Amino acid sequence: MAAYEPFQLSAGVAMKRTPQVQHADGLPSKVSIYEVGPRDGLQNESAIVPVEVKAHFVRRLVAAGLQSVEVTSFVHPQWVPQLADAEQLIDALDLTMAPRMPVLVPNVRGLDRALSKNLHDIAIFASATESFAQRNLNRSLDEQFTMFEPVVAGARRRGLWVRAYLSMCFGDPWEGDVSVAQVVKMARRLLDLGCDELSLGDTIGVATPGHVEALLTELFAAGTASGQVAVHFHDTYGQALANALTAMRLGVTTIDSSAGGLGGCPYAESATGNLATEDLVWQLQGLGIQTGVDLEALVATSVWMAEQIGKPTVSRVVSALAG
Amino acid sequence: MAAYEPFQLSAGVAMKRTPQVQHADGLPSKVSIYEVGPRDGLQNESAIVPVEVKAHFVRRLVAAGLQSVEVTSFVHPQWVPQLADAEQLIDALDLTMAPRMPVLVPNVRGLDRALSKNLHDIAIFASATESFAQRNLNRSLDEQFTMFEPVVAGARRRGLWVRAYLSMCFGDPWEGDVSVAQVVKMARRLLDLGCDELSLGDTIGVATPGHVEALLTELFAAGTASGQVAVHFHDTYGQALANALTAMRLGVTTIDSSAGGLGGCPYAESATGNLATEDLVWQLQGLGIQTGVDLEALVATSVWMAEQIGKPTVSRVVSALAG
Repeated sequence: MAAYEPFQLSAGVAMKRTPQVQHADGLPSKVSIYEVGPRDGLQNESAIVPVEVKAHFVRRLVAAGLQSVEVTSFVHPQWVPQLADAEQLIDALDLTMAPRMPVLVPNVRGLDRALSKNLHDIAIFASATESFAQRNLNRSLDEQFTMFEPVVAGARRRGLWVRAYLSMCFGDPWEGDVSVAQVVKMARRLLDLGCDELSLGDTIGVATPGHVEALLTELFAAGTASGQVAVHFHDTYGQALANALTAMRLGVTTIDSSAGGLGGCPYAESATGNLATEDLVWQLQGLGIQTGVDLEALVATSVWMAEQIGKPTVSRVVSALAG
Repeated sequence: MAAYEPFQLSAGVAMKRTPQVQHADGLPSKVSIYEVGPRDGLQNESAIVPVEVKAHFVRRLVAAGLQSVEVTSFVHPQWVPQLADAEQLIDALDLTMAPRMPVLVPNVRGLDRALSKNLHDIAIFASATESFAQRNLNRSLDEQFTMFEPVVAGARRRGLWVRAYLSMCFGDPWEGDVSVAQVVKMARRLLDLGCDELSLGDTIGVATPGHVEALLTELFAAGTASGQVAVHFHDTYGQALANALTAMRLGVTTIDSSAGGLGGCPYAESATGNLATEDLVWQLQGLGIQTGVDLEALVATSVWMAEQIGKPTVSRVVSALAG
């Protein structure tokens, strides 16, 4: 990948660097992007990134205008060696630099570590399917709630903001199809524990717009407010942005993405996993939806990060703008 | 790229090979995919593909269920050496094997060549902007209509079906933004010549859904029927499927795409140009929209074609399923 040059010419013609703005009816005027690159992204890359590089990455993301950046995870280093430096990274950062800088905590031990670092925001990671609960958490679907209950209760007692990820919401590599009713039930159980935000994860990227519409419609009919819900789409089958557009039409205003599309697909060898933040920002800019993100600064950050991990970006926008 | 295996396991887990079907309100029940891989795709790849390989490619596309396949172009070999074998390819094919097998004709000489081969369908290629008309056709915007008028009139007199491409509808690498009013004016001029179908091209891939909505709304308000309109999105910035979804919501039922995403971006060095047919088919299958396409057969075709041109596919779905 060539170094980033703001006004680079390709084949003698300048790439268009911003979309033409055209609002569409029925969409929000503002969307919060929840950046997962430093945690979900780097967790799923094979490269082990030095802690100073991670700290610089987080600072550049915040400087590019991202207001919610998930920093790292307190999962055991045996399972995720990529994030074994969680405490050092937190020590290297000023976690008040952005409004939301959560750390993933898998259990009460993780919560204790978060509390010892005076964090303000945490995230927990649940499964919508029995198979993935067993394989990822070594617990049944019910047992995961037994594990999360004291985490959420403890966090809330201390005034922490709590996000819950619900994974495999649109399909599961072991079970295949996953029913909307099953996902709504698990989603409600997480929200009823007291979580502030629920992120619906298409962990293997198989969702299409009708499925997104069906799940959100059922979830809202079950008494969930759109402001409590975030969407986390993977681009494994190229569907993430069409799904995000569909979610916005239904009132969702928080969308997860990963700078440069960092992360790959954790359950298959496809190169593409997380929706790239740049591709999302391009769509939102074109729609005149405010994000606060400086696209050029973000692209430059992802180009730099791709050099650090020695792997080209999967983001279409980064490829187009950085050539 | 590994050889294609229908039930390949990746990292010990099977990729989900079909999306969960969930219809959405306000979308068509059936969509015609207009396959541009053999012409627009191969025209923009650097590899020169032997004519027998091209013929086999077209036959496999038709066997996979595609009913409209643009075969080649009668443009001068000096400009597009990749398609210098147009006549030989047509001789090698039975052009009644699919309902629509158009050939691009740039001018009356091209029409004469089409007529000498007894073709039933042709396509012409126009520009929505002055800059691109000058650079691609060496003509002004007005002069291109002078060139096309006898082509369309001659084709219609002989009962040929005529498609008109209108390029740079959402942005132009020299002019930047392109106004909706300008595009509607050029679109109407092409339809008023007597073209049967108009394909609105986002040649540099910069469109976003609000822009698509604005253009289609204006075009329909100007008296155009949705059945006359096709959309041709490029995935250069990752926006093609969200744009296609938007077009379908507005009544469009013909969508252009290229098997495996063949073609790159003709006006920049980005790897990604044409929307990949497989990515489109995944979305349509998930939405329960009929296409008649066998996705597994199509993926196998694109994997084979990628080997022929010695370049990995840019299709997310092909990457996911053929790993």
